[in-house]
Amino acid sequence: MAEQHKFYGQEEFSKGLEGVIACESKLGYIDGQKGWLIYRGIEIGDLAEHSTYEETAYLLLFGKLPTRKELDEFTQKLVNYRTIDPRVADIIKSMPPTAHPMALLRTAFSALGAYENPEKVDEFDLEAWTELGIKAISQMATVAAEVGRLRAGLPPVAPDPNLNHASDFFYMLTGKKPNELEADVMNKALILHADHGMNASTFTSMVVASSLSDIYSAITGGLSSLKGPLHGGANERTLKMFMEIGEPENAKAYIEDKLARKVKIMGMGHRVYKAYDPRAKILKSYAERLAKLSGNEKLYTISQEVEKVMIERLGKKGIFPNVDYYSGIVYHSLGIDSKMFTPIFAVSRVAGWVARVLEYLHSNRIFRPRAIYTGPLKAEYVPIDQRS
Amino acid sequence: MAEQHKFYGQEEFSKGLEGVIACESKLGYIDGQKGWLIYRGIEIGDLAEHSTYEETAYLLLFGKLPTRKELDEFTQKLVNYRTIDPRVADIIKSMPPTAHPMALLRTAFSALGAYENPEKVDEFDLEAWTELGIKAISQMATVAAEVGRLRAGLPPVAPDPNLNHASDFFYMLTGKKPNELEADVMNKALILHADHGMNASTFTSMVVASSLSDIYSAITGGLSSLKGPLHGGANERTLKMFMEIGEPENAKAYIEDKLARKVKIMGMGHRVYKAYDPRAKILKSYAERLAKLSGNEKLYTISQEVEKVMIERLGKKGIFPNVDYYSGIVYHSLGIDSKMFTPIFAVSRVAGWVARVLEYLHSNRIFRPRAIYTGPLKAEYVPIDQRS
Repeated sequence: MAEQHKFYGQEEFSKGLEGVIACESKLGYIDGQKGWLIYRGIEIGDLAEHSTYEETAYLLLFGKLPTRKELDEFTQKLVNYRTIDPRVADIIKSMPPTAHPMALLRTAFSALGAYENPEKVDEFDLEAWTELGIKAISQMATVAAEVGRLRAGLPPVAPDPNLNHASDFFYMLTGKKPNELEADVMNKALILHADHGMNASTFTSMVVASSLSDIYSAITGGLSSLKGPLHGGANERTLKMFMEIGEPENAKAYIEDKLARKVKIMGMGHRVYKAYDPRAKILKSYAERLAKLSGNEKLYTISQEVEKVMIERLGKKGIFPNVDYYSGIVYHSLGIDSKMFTPIFAVSRVAGWVARVLEYLHSNRIFRPRAIYTGPLKAEYVPIDQRS
Repeated sequence: MAEQHKFYGQEEFSKGLEGVIACESKLGYIDGQKGWLIYRGIEIGDLAEHSTYEETAYLLLFGKLPTRKELDEFTQKLVNYRTIDPRVADIIKSMPPTAHPMALLRTAFSALGAYENPEKVDEFDLEAWTELGIKAISQMATVAAEVGRLRAGLPPVAPDPNLNHASDFFYMLTGKKPNELEADVMNKALILHADHGMNASTFTSMVVASSLSDIYSAITGGLSSLKGPLHGGANERTLKMFMEIGEPENAKAYIEDKLARKVKIMGMGHRVYKAYDPRAKILKSYAERLAKLSGNEKLYTISQEVEKVMIERLGKKGIFPNVDYYSGIVYHSLGIDSKMFTPIFAVSRVAGWVARVLEYLHSNRIFRPRAIYTGPLKAEYVPIDQRS
C-alpha cells in the first residue's frame, strides 16, 4: 500500500500557493523588489497620468492601446451597456440594507447573469464571452452604485451617457456630478486597481471560469473573494485605524503598541511588494490634496505619522504603504461611505478579472490541484451504538 | 533588469495546477490508480452501504463518526434550518425560468447570506462559521428544490421534518414522498458526491474563504464553478449522449466516430482516476434497477454498449466510467429534469465545500499564486493620434 500512497505526508508545499506558478500571462507584471507595476508593458504611472479607465480596460482586454476609432467604439459599448434590468434594484431592495454591501453586490451581479440569453452565457465562445465581459465591466459600476444608493435609502441615479466611466460611476453613486479634481482622482483610482497579478479574487475568477462555467459566474466568484478583509477590505480597515488613532501625537504610541503585540498594521506591507507600492505613491498626493479640501487634514497628518514610524521600524524588512493605505483617505475625502470602498474596488478590478479569464480560456485547463492527505488511511465504519 | 525578472519566461509549470499541492487535508483521499476513495479513512463503499448523508456530513465536518446523541443533535439542527426566508422564492421568481438553474441557485443562495446577521457572517470565527456551514448544508437542499419547482412553474414544497435529508430533498423537489428504493438511492447519491479532493468547485470555495470573506461567499464561489460543463455538467451531457445514440446497436459506431475525431466521450475518464471510479460502481447497480422500473431500460443498455466499447478501446489507458456516467441515468429514472442534475450535485457537495473551507481556515493563508509573465517588459504609452 505504501507505494500507491507515495504522496502521503512526505512532501513540502507552499502555503497559499505562494510563489507557485498557476499560468502564463501577458497581462501585467509586478516587480515587488523595485515597486514596479506594468499593464501590458506600460508603467502604471504613465497610465495613471495619461490614460482613462476605458482605455486601460481596452489595453488589458485586447493587449494594445486602442486607436481613436477603437476607443470610441469601445467607449460607446460601455455607455450603451450601463443601463441595467430594473429587477436588479428590486433584488437589492429585498435584502436588508444592513447586510455587507459586497453580499448585496455579489447577489445583484449574479442575478444579471440570469437575465442574459442562456445560449450566449452558458456556451463557451470566446467572442461572445468577450462581449459579455465588456458588458460586465460596464454594468459593475451601475450595480455597485445601485447598492450604494439603495442601502443608504436613496433612489438609484440613472447613468449619464455624457460622462466617462469613472465620472459616471461617481455620479450614480453620489448623485453629484464630479468636479475636475474628483473626476481625475476617480479615473486614476479605477486605473490603479484594474489589475494586479494573481491576487485571490482574480485567481478565483480564473478557477471558476476554468470549468467553462460563464463570465457572470467567474465575476461572482471574484466578488465573493474580494469581499474578504484580507483582500478588498483593507482600505476600509486602514481608514478605521487612522480614525481610532484620533490625533497625530497618538500615532507613534499606537503603532509601537501594535507592533509589540504583533498585531498587523493595516495598509502596510504586501505579499508581492517589498518596496513602496507605486499605486500608493500616486494616490498619496491626491490623499493630501483631497484631505485638505474636505477638512480631513488631520487624518492625512495621522497617516504621515504612522508611515514615518512604520518605515523607520520596518522599512528595512520591505514593509511600506500599499495602495489600500491611501485609497481610504481619498474615498473618505470624496464623501463616500467607507462601507462602499470594496464595491469601488470591484468596479475597477472587474476589468482585470475579465481580461485574465479570457486570456486563460484561450488555452484552458480546469484547475484541480491536490492536497497532501494527512488523515488515517484506514478507519472502520463502526456501528453507531459501538461509537464513543 | 534581468536579475529582477528572473522568472520571466523561464520556468516550467503545470497547467491547471495538476499535481501541485495546495494544502494539507485530513478530509479525504483518492487513490486514482486503485480506484479507491475514502472520507476520513472510511471507504466510500462502506459509507454508501451503511451511512446516511447526515452522518457522512458530520464525519466530513468533525473528523469522526458521531455517537447517537451527536448525530441526533446534528440531524435536528439540519431539520431546524431547512425552512428558508420566503424572499428567496421571490428572488428566484424575479429571474427568467429559462436561465441556467445554477445561475438561479447561485443568486438565490448568495441572497441567503445577506439575510443573516452580518456580525456572525462577516467576522471570522471558526465556531460561528461552523454553525453557518451546517445551516448552509441544510438550506442548499431547500434552495435547490425551490429552484427546481419555480422554474417548472410549480409552487415550492415545504420541508417535512419527519424525512431524512436526502428524502426531504427528493420530496421538496418532486412533491412526492420517496419510496424505499428512491430514498435509498438519493441518500447514496448524496453520500457519494459529498467530497472529492481538490476539485475545481471545492478549490474555488477555499480560495474565496482564504480572504476571510465568509461561508456564503465561499459556497457561492463553489456554485459558480460547479456550474461549468467541465465540472458539474458532465452527467447531464452523458445522459444527452445516451439519448443521441438512441439505440444500443448505434453505440459502437457512434463512439468509434467520436474517437476517430478525438471528441471527448462524456462520463468517461477522470483526471484523478485511472481505474473504475468506485462511485460509478455503486451507482451502476442502481442505474440498472431504476432504469428497468421506470421504462428506461434502453438507456441503460446503451450505457452498457458504450462502456464495453470504451473499455476495450481505452481501458488500457485508464479510461473508465466516472460517477457522472451513471448518476444521469439514476436521476432521469427517478423522473428528475436533467437541468436539475447539477443543483443536486451542489446539494451533496456543499458538505465537502464547508468541511474543507473550515479545515483550511484552521491555519489560513490567502491563496495568491503567480503567473509567468510572457508579455513585453517595456512598452511606451503612445499618444492616441500616433497609434496604429
